[in-house]
Amino acid sequence: MSTAAGLHVEPGARAECHRRLLSVKGHVEGLLRMLDDPDVYCVDVLKQIKAVRGALAVAGEVVLKSHLHKHVVTAHARGDTQRIVEELMDVLKYR
Amino acid sequence: MSTAAGLHVEPGARAECHRRLLSVKGHVEGLLRMLDDPDVYCVDVLKQIKAVRGALAVAGEVVLKSHLHKHVVTAHARGDTQRIVEELMDVLKYR
Amino acid sequence: MSTAAGLHVEPGARAECHRRLLSVKGHVEGLLRMLDDPDVYCVDVLKQIKAVRGALAVAGEVVLKSHLHKHVVTAHARGDTQRIVEELMDVLKYR
Amino acid sequence: MSTAAGLHVEPGARAECHRRLLSVKGHVEGLLRMLDDPDVYCVDVLKQIKAVRGALAVAGEVVLKSHLHKHVVTAHARGDTQRIVEELMDVLKYR
Repeated sequence: MSTAAGLHVEPGARAECHRRLLSVKGHVEGLLRMLDDPDVYCVDVLKQIKAVRGALAVAGEVVLKSHLHKHVVTAHARGDTQRIVEELMDVLKYR
Repeated sequence: MSTAAGLHVEPGARAECHRRLLSVKGHVEGLLRMLDDPDVYCVDVLKQIKAVRGALAVAGEVVLKSHLHKHVVTAHARGDTQRIVEELMDVLKYR
Repeated sequence: MSTAAGLHVEPGARAECHRRLLSVKGHVEGLLRMLDDPDVYCVDVLKQIKAVRGALAVAGEVVLKSHLHKHVVTAHARGDTQRIVEELMDVLKYR
Repeated sequence: MSTAAGLHVEPGARAECHRRLLSVKGHVEGLLRMLDDPDVYCVDVLKQIKAVRGALAVAGEVVLKSHLHKHVVTAHARGDTQRIVEELMDVLKYR
């Protein structure tokens, strides 16, 4: 995908993000089982989807924080400010 | 969970939400594989997480639209307006 | 704008939304004054903008809740379910 | 507010953010006038509030991008990484 040679997710953040996404996967599997039940109530599904979206957001924040710490704050010294800022704005922007 | 006897997710919406969540699950599994790679780049992870969050939002909209159509617009006639509105606001509110 | 004859914002919600938007306006004016200061710090501006967005969201929730209570729960009886649901989904959807 | 001596909003971003917030202010004033009309329709108000929230988000992005460019990418060299990252995460996080 990316060509950002050398800018890898820091191992600790990668492990934590992985752990959180494993939990997200379990949550989605639980949702799929809920939806197998013809008596499931709409709002119960909506609550669970909202919770999974929140959990995904937190998993992203782990990587974002690590990216800021390890790669963004050193961009000027490394000389790739333009690229680092553009791609980060793409991910952070409203729509 | 809920005690909303009789207010079930309409079968078509339930099937479409299920199909979309199955795709979300596959997407999360793809993310987990990405994170197994020590060379994965932070912004590539952030992009994928953003995409999964969007897909989850759309899966929720399927159920929300169905809920509005099948249950919310008839709440006054059914006599459970208070409950229907409270629980919907809980799910829709900003935080 | 709209042609939804008779479906007006309920007076209490209209007054509360007005009051909240007056406060939002004051907040935006405060932000404009902040930005007159050449020494203003980026993150202080970002915090204020986030706060104003939250206050706007709450002002919207006042109207949304009232709309659900007064107009959406009676749509089936009134016979305009299709329109009520479509336009609400437009406003609520992710993007 | 802040004690980030020397880290000011870059003049171009400050001017553009000011211009956008002036437009937001006008938009909020328009909303206040809408709400003076007892016949205003709920969904028309919700649409306007959504638009103003989007405009505010864009005003924030102007400052965020400038902050990244001017202050965040140089944090390591300046020696205030910890502070820069913490306060940015506070502003960017999900809730």
